[in-house]
Amino acid sequence: MSANAGVSGQLAQFAVGARWDDLPADVAHQAKRSVMNLFAVALTGCRTETFEALLQTLAQFSGRKQATLIGRRERVDALSAAFLNAAGANVLDFCDTHVPTGIHPTAPLVPPLLALAELGPVNGRDFLLALVLGQELACRIGLAMSPSHYNERGWHIMATCGVFGAAAGGGKLLGLNATQMVWALGMAATQSAGLCECLGTPAKSVGVGNAARNGLLAALLAAKNFAGPAEPLNGSQGYYHALAETPKLSLLTEGLGQTWEILKTSYKPYPCGFVLHAALDCVLDWRREHPDAVVTNVAVTGNPLLGIRTDRPKISTSAQSQVSVQHALAAALVTGKAGVEQFSEACVNDPRVVALRDKVQVLRDASFTTVASAVDITTADGKVYKLLQKTARGSDDNPMTDRDLEQKLRDAASGWNAGYEVGPLIDAIWYLDKSGDIAKLTALAVPQA
Amino acid sequence: MSANAGVSGQLAQFAVGARWDDLPADVAHQAKRSVMNLFAVALTGCRTETFEALLQTLAQFSGRKQATLIGRRERVDALSAAFLNAAGANVLDFCDTHVPTGIHPTAPLVPPLLALAELGPVNGRDFLLALVLGQELACRIGLAMSPSHYNERGWHIMATCGVFGAAAGGGKLLGLNATQMVWALGMAATQSAGLCECLGTPAKSVGVGNAARNGLLAALLAAKNFAGPAEPLNGSQGYYHALAETPKLSLLTEGLGQTWEILKTSYKPYPCGFVLHAALDCVLDWRREHPDAVVTNVAVTGNPLLGIRTDRPKISTSAQSQVSVQHALAAALVTGKAGVEQFSEACVNDPRVVALRDKVQVLRDASFTTVASAVDITTADGKVYKLLQKTARGSDDNPMTDRDLEQKLRDAASGWNAGYEVGPLIDAIWYLDKSGDIAKLTALAVPQA
Repeated sequence: MSANAGVSGQLAQFAVGARWDDLPADVAHQAKRSVMNLFAVALTGCRTETFEALLQTLAQFSGRKQATLIGRRERVDALSAAFLNAAGANVLDFCDTHVPTGIHPTAPLVPPLLALAELGPVNGRDFLLALVLGQELACRIGLAMSPSHYNERGWHIMATCGVFGAAAGGGKLLGLNATQMVWALGMAATQSAGLCECLGTPAKSVGVGNAARNGLLAALLAAKNFAGPAEPLNGSQGYYHALAETPKLSLLTEGLGQTWEILKTSYKPYPCGFVLHAALDCVLDWRREHPDAVVTNVAVTGNPLLGIRTDRPKISTSAQSQVSVQHALAAALVTGKAGVEQFSEACVNDPRVVALRDKVQVLRDASFTTVASAVDITTADGKVYKLLQKTARGSDDNPMTDRDLEQKLRDAASGWNAGYEVGPLIDAIWYLDKSGDIAKLTALAVPQA
Repeated sequence: MSANAGVSGQLAQFAVGARWDDLPADVAHQAKRSVMNLFAVALTGCRTETFEALLQTLAQFSGRKQATLIGRRERVDALSAAFLNAAGANVLDFCDTHVPTGIHPTAPLVPPLLALAELGPVNGRDFLLALVLGQELACRIGLAMSPSHYNERGWHIMATCGVFGAAAGGGKLLGLNATQMVWALGMAATQSAGLCECLGTPAKSVGVGNAARNGLLAALLAAKNFAGPAEPLNGSQGYYHALAETPKLSLLTEGLGQTWEILKTSYKPYPCGFVLHAALDCVLDWRREHPDAVVTNVAVTGNPLLGIRTDRPKISTSAQSQVSVQHALAAALVTGKAGVEQFSEACVNDPRVVALRDKVQVLRDASFTTVASAVDITTADGKVYKLLQKTARGSDDNPMTDRDLEQKLRDAASGWNAGYEVGPLIDAIWYLDKSGDIAKLTALAVPQA
């Protein structure tokens, strides 16, 4: 492919040519942090009803026991494992977030790579490199059509772009050449799907699982020389023509190999939409200092996206609770926490939480970033507390530490199985770049106790 | 669900409530014709390189031998069978066409129904009813966003709408209630994908296969009460918001149950662009009467679209041959046929065909419809034969007869395996409404010789 290749070819050439030694140390380390977070969220999601229903359905059709499910003893074929581990990792909205786009990059990307590692030997450096590159392409493809693709047209960008990450990362592990990589991106493009209308319902997980499975399928087919179009992204009837309004194509390639999108990733301390986090920081800190105050009114101000995505006062399900600012703040004020239990069916129906949800007003202010919020709390004694969080915990300027991420994984592991010793998994993740074969990595995420 | 349900609910209620006795006789008969055509095109497509590559890839992951592949001895799981039979049926562009939208409805719809029939008992009437209803919903969903969705934004409408047909038809066989049917449509919506940029490449078949597989998955999940949004089609972040410009929602429900989209379906006698068909009719009839005449010149006159789409004298691939009027007429004159072999690489490179392609002139005349052509043939003895076809075989006013469709299936069967006795399959299709269990139907489409 020539130096004058279109944007698809340029992205493909970059992914095919990149080497481990090209990765700055902070990029390689961030990849490990993403893996740590992925196992934590998948260990949480793998015990949900949604995961059970997906597993039962796919297991009817999955004969080959090729690949491991995070946190589960069942084994399934590699494509189904990619689907299920991705869906499980995202089901509780506890994923990492690429802040500039809102993409949750790791859930649809790492599971296909783990599945490939169980089909044939993959060393830890190749795995981390594939992760970084898959994320780079997925996020750049999303950047070029942000924010309209997600915010206006209602595409669920983690799914619509996640399929490219899985295709590119999977293709990198499979050793595709540049032409094959363009084909893989083309087959990803023609499988790209997912609607925001499904957020807050189990149907969301179908789009997320498919992104992982179908991206892996694209890579596998390309490796067999199954061809696609020469310019899938920018062709006259191609991806951007159908799914974007006025794509900024320069964002696909500007600084490619110099800047790294994975460094713009944050990890969530709370299992709910990240636009809710700054407000939760405010409320949790305040409640810690005022354990007995009776709240009569809450007014939360945030970026318009907070209102667009989460102004949802009437809810009845766990899935809805994760995208309801009214619920998140009410539950945090009632219980003093914002963990998995606060977004459970039980908490959704807790009469104290129900009553407080009605007292939360949402205000939109474009001067707020998506990681900032102001919360005014009025108490029964007439006092008003004005709280402000400029950079949510877990966001770029206030990141979770390595120890925070380890603890998130430990919490997830002990929440699933009190006897599960997760130390070996944590060590294996920090030492991924020293591993000659990661085939057994996922099995460390299955409690044996 | 109330009578005031949104459009998704209204479509769901219709599909759930419809009964065999509601179908006019011509609708039920047309469904059988669609099945006949489906088996013919699938028996043709199942022996292509594209099909082989898809089968080999999916077979690596498919352990359970649940379902039959049309024309093949291999068995795979039901989801993979839906994918492969759909992709195989469409790979040669020989499918039925819903004329108002350009949707090829049967390829992504019948394979999931056949796969379900191998998982549990399905009688012939239920199968035909599910086919009619699946097509009705897929075509109406497409009509409401035609022509911009396909012609302007470049969505491959047979895939983007096919997934709804598979979900609705599969859901009907699974006995979904109206709420579950809305969920199935929602999971179809969030999996809807496919780009015209992939047409003319193997990647096209990935979108077509997915429409079948993913629609079936949507129905299976809905049957397990896996929920989706309440108004997936017309919700504020729903299907039409993302994939349509100005949807005409009234077309979704106007006359529902009174008119039937399946009656607007045509079937192709020749595996090539429909604008070529009238000229092929002329040439094939003439050759039959003049088997030994030596052709020195051919002048074909047709609607300007004939020239725009198919004036392509120099070609080198099978895919190009399907949209070259020079090739189609030369091959028909040399061989006396216009079947799959006439659009193969071998025929493209046949020196007799190459020589004759240079002698075909194309004239544009706006007084011709797209289903009409005139052909003047000059022979070596100086005679000129003036031929005219006003309505191509297979077009609305000159539909393929039941016998034509039978013959299309016989030709496909004998082209695959000379010893294959296809009579029992043909009989089984015409008597589908008498069958108490169609589990063995697909197996009749596997040559045992």
